[in-house]
Amino acid sequence: MSFFSILKGAAATDWQGYTQHSFVARLAAGTLEKKLFQHYLRQDYLFLIEFARAYALLAYKADSLTGMRYALSGLNAILEQELSLHLKYCREWGLSEADVLATPPSVELIAYTRFVLDTGQRGDALDLLTALSPCIIGYAEIGAALKADPATVKIGNPYYSWIEMYSGAEYQNVAASAMVELDRQAGARLTPIRQTQLEGIFRTATRLEEQFWPV
Amino acid sequence: MSFFSILKGAAATDWQGYTQHSFVARLAAGTLEKKLFQHYLRQDYLFLIEFARAYALLAYKADSLTGMRYALSGLNAILEQELSLHLKYCREWGLSEADVLATPPSVELIAYTRFVLDTGQRGDALDLLTALSPCIIGYAEIGAALKADPATVKIGNPYYSWIEMYSGAEYQNVAASAMVELDRQAGARLTPIRQTQLEGIFRTATRLEEQFWPV
Amino acid sequence: MSFFSILKGAAATDWQGYTQHSFVARLAAGTLEKKLFQHYLRQDYLFLIEFARAYALLAYKADSLTGMRYALSGLNAILEQELSLHLKYCREWGLSEADVLATPPSVELIAYTRFVLDTGQRGDALDLLTALSPCIIGYAEIGAALKADPATVKIGNPYYSWIEMYSGAEYQNVAASAMVELDRQAGARLTPIRQTQLEGIFRTATRLEEQFWPV
Amino acid sequence: MSFFSILKGAAATDWQGYTQHSFVARLAAGTLEKKLFQHYLRQDYLFLIEFARAYALLAYKADSLTGMRYALSGLNAILEQELSLHLKYCREWGLSEADVLATPPSVELIAYTRFVLDTGQRGDALDLLTALSPCIIGYAEIGAALKADPATVKIGNPYYSWIEMYSGAEYQNVAASAMVELDRQAGARLTPIRQTQLEGIFRTATRLEEQFWPV
Repeated sequence: MSFFSILKGAAATDWQGYTQHSFVARLAAGTLEKKLFQHYLRQDYLFLIEFARAYALLAYKADSLTGMRYALSGLNAILEQELSLHLKYCREWGLSEADVLATPPSVELIAYTRFVLDTGQRGDALDLLTALSPCIIGYAEIGAALKADPATVKIGNPYYSWIEMYSGAEYQNVAASAMVELDRQAGARLTPIRQTQLEGIFRTATRLEEQFWPV
Repeated sequence: MSFFSILKGAAATDWQGYTQHSFVARLAAGTLEKKLFQHYLRQDYLFLIEFARAYALLAYKADSLTGMRYALSGLNAILEQELSLHLKYCREWGLSEADVLATPPSVELIAYTRFVLDTGQRGDALDLLTALSPCIIGYAEIGAALKADPATVKIGNPYYSWIEMYSGAEYQNVAASAMVELDRQAGARLTPIRQTQLEGIFRTATRLEEQFWPV
Repeated sequence: MSFFSILKGAAATDWQGYTQHSFVARLAAGTLEKKLFQHYLRQDYLFLIEFARAYALLAYKADSLTGMRYALSGLNAILEQELSLHLKYCREWGLSEADVLATPPSVELIAYTRFVLDTGQRGDALDLLTALSPCIIGYAEIGAALKADPATVKIGNPYYSWIEMYSGAEYQNVAASAMVELDRQAGARLTPIRQTQLEGIFRTATRLEEQFWPV
Repeated sequence: MSFFSILKGAAATDWQGYTQHSFVARLAAGTLEKKLFQHYLRQDYLFLIEFARAYALLAYKADSLTGMRYALSGLNAILEQELSLHLKYCREWGLSEADVLATPPSVELIAYTRFVLDTGQRGDALDLLTALSPCIIGYAEIGAALKADPATVKIGNPYYSWIEMYSGAEYQNVAASAMVELDRQAGARLTPIRQTQLEGIFRTATRLEEQFWPV
């Protein structure tokens, strides 16, 4: 059983609130208001930049070259691919680069990203990875679940490209690597008391992800 | 002109939104719902703990014994006085210690406190102090303004003790010391580009303080 | 068996090199060159300032009020007592405050103090406390051993006041508290892999303490 | 005038001690003891790993995508090229990978690398970059000076490949980029008081680089 499954099991209600949020359901049904999705896209760009900082912090904190290289792959992916892909995707949704860059951060964005970063600075790489995991692995789970769900509207759903991105092989691999790294760290550092603390971090991070979906 | 005045001037609208928030107005009028104040008190206890961590970080970051001792005074005040005074005040409002300690952090609490802590770790002591100042100095300003305002209800207002605490000499001195320390740091480190960045930090921190008032 | 004993046992050779260093032996015999002791005293003042920063970092990193208060007691002791006592002691050895403050840091000072601080930022409170412990607890052990050793010269030994300070009840209590806090942290966070890492941190810190004695 | 030139000018004696060290002179003359160079190579591998951590920290601290990408390029270079090139170079000097990896860190290695990392965590990106610059830019200056010096032994000098590496276009570009980034940061953040502090950081870092040359 992966450590991620243990964390998820301990935060079952919050996990459901996050992964089965009405934003997600309406995205699958194609009924989400465009404005809400645009708001989400704008904040998600700021989110990526803070996540790049979190991966950089993870590289600084790593206690092995394996850990450093894992963190570096995440940092490279964001800075060398995802940010420009995201801006391109925003343009398709009618948001110019200038528009995105001028967006002030929402309280929900600040709450999740700074919680992750402070959790990492305060603790060790396992704390940091645990705080990142609801996002990294959760998006893969949401994408795969929506893709597999026969109720998901595929034709004429403007949000279907989002579902394809997160259910696609590339992103599923990102999440699989995060699970491996989380298990590696947990294998080295988990104790009963830390498990309780890490479940607390995971639960808070999941709640903050839930609140990141705009309503 | 103090650096704090400059920061406040650059965030005038947000500052007004924070210091003249309806929570504040209803507190002065004695019309605030008890439940809202209790919610605020509970979160404020968690807030103090994170602020103690911020003062500890400030001591670590300080580049002089003067700076370390300023930070230490804040850390001592919270850990050796304010936390127990706060629990005592909570009891007067019908909240047991167990009740307060079991309170989960709100998204607004996490947003402000982790923004402060990450701003401090990322930057220098001036960044950290700037992010702390809307709270430290703002509460003194709110307390003094309400105390001086003839419209404030003094007799029979259950919240008047809160106003007296923040308008009292002891807390006014805390705020005055923060202004001195902020000027000292700004005197050493301010440049035009940094001023723009610090105004951004101050504005965000002020917005997060505004959102910390429960509605 | 305390975690400190385990750490010491795993670094037995280095521990002996540190605690039975010729500097220590000549201090007990009263034969140490005054210049060497003066060099040590000057660097030790700079050392205290960095140790204050390490305690501040420990307070920031703590995951409980107990941990924060332990760190705060160390920070208070240095900033409110030890620094001025140290300057007074330096004056007795013919070193003016100006002389001490103008001393450039030695490579050995930088190595130990920055190793402690980076170990703390990179890892968690247990890593930080482990890196601090050869100093905090080692000095108590050295002081007590020299005090108990019949070979130690007591009369006419200009260094005997140093031995009395570290063998005295006040400093022995500081070391005892550090052992309690180290056990508390190890009880919560120790795993076999971490133990190997912490033994490595302890061994390096002990080697750096050994090299801090001037020759 | 570049900020690097200003820093170098303020640390002229220390800079000379570092760049014209007897280790460097004997390397140029081809008369350096092989054992000393092997010691240097072993420590330099550990150095690269800590420098990767410093670049990761710089990415975390950066206040712009430009700054993050600069740091990322340094991190990528070390983790994806330099570490394996270094091990290959070590093998040419008779040091197996196992031998290099088992090397305990010297006090001089710990002093410089942890000084850099703590300076970065304590301060901002400009502090960190200043502490890194004697290494990044100094090696390019040493390489170019030795290459241009007619007294340098080129034929039959086993160390000439080292000189070619650091005088080569690729490494000269690395140093040129660091100077650009340092100027960019100084342009945003320099004040008279900070200049004095940064000169102190640079001087200490230069002294620690000097002491990193084995004797």
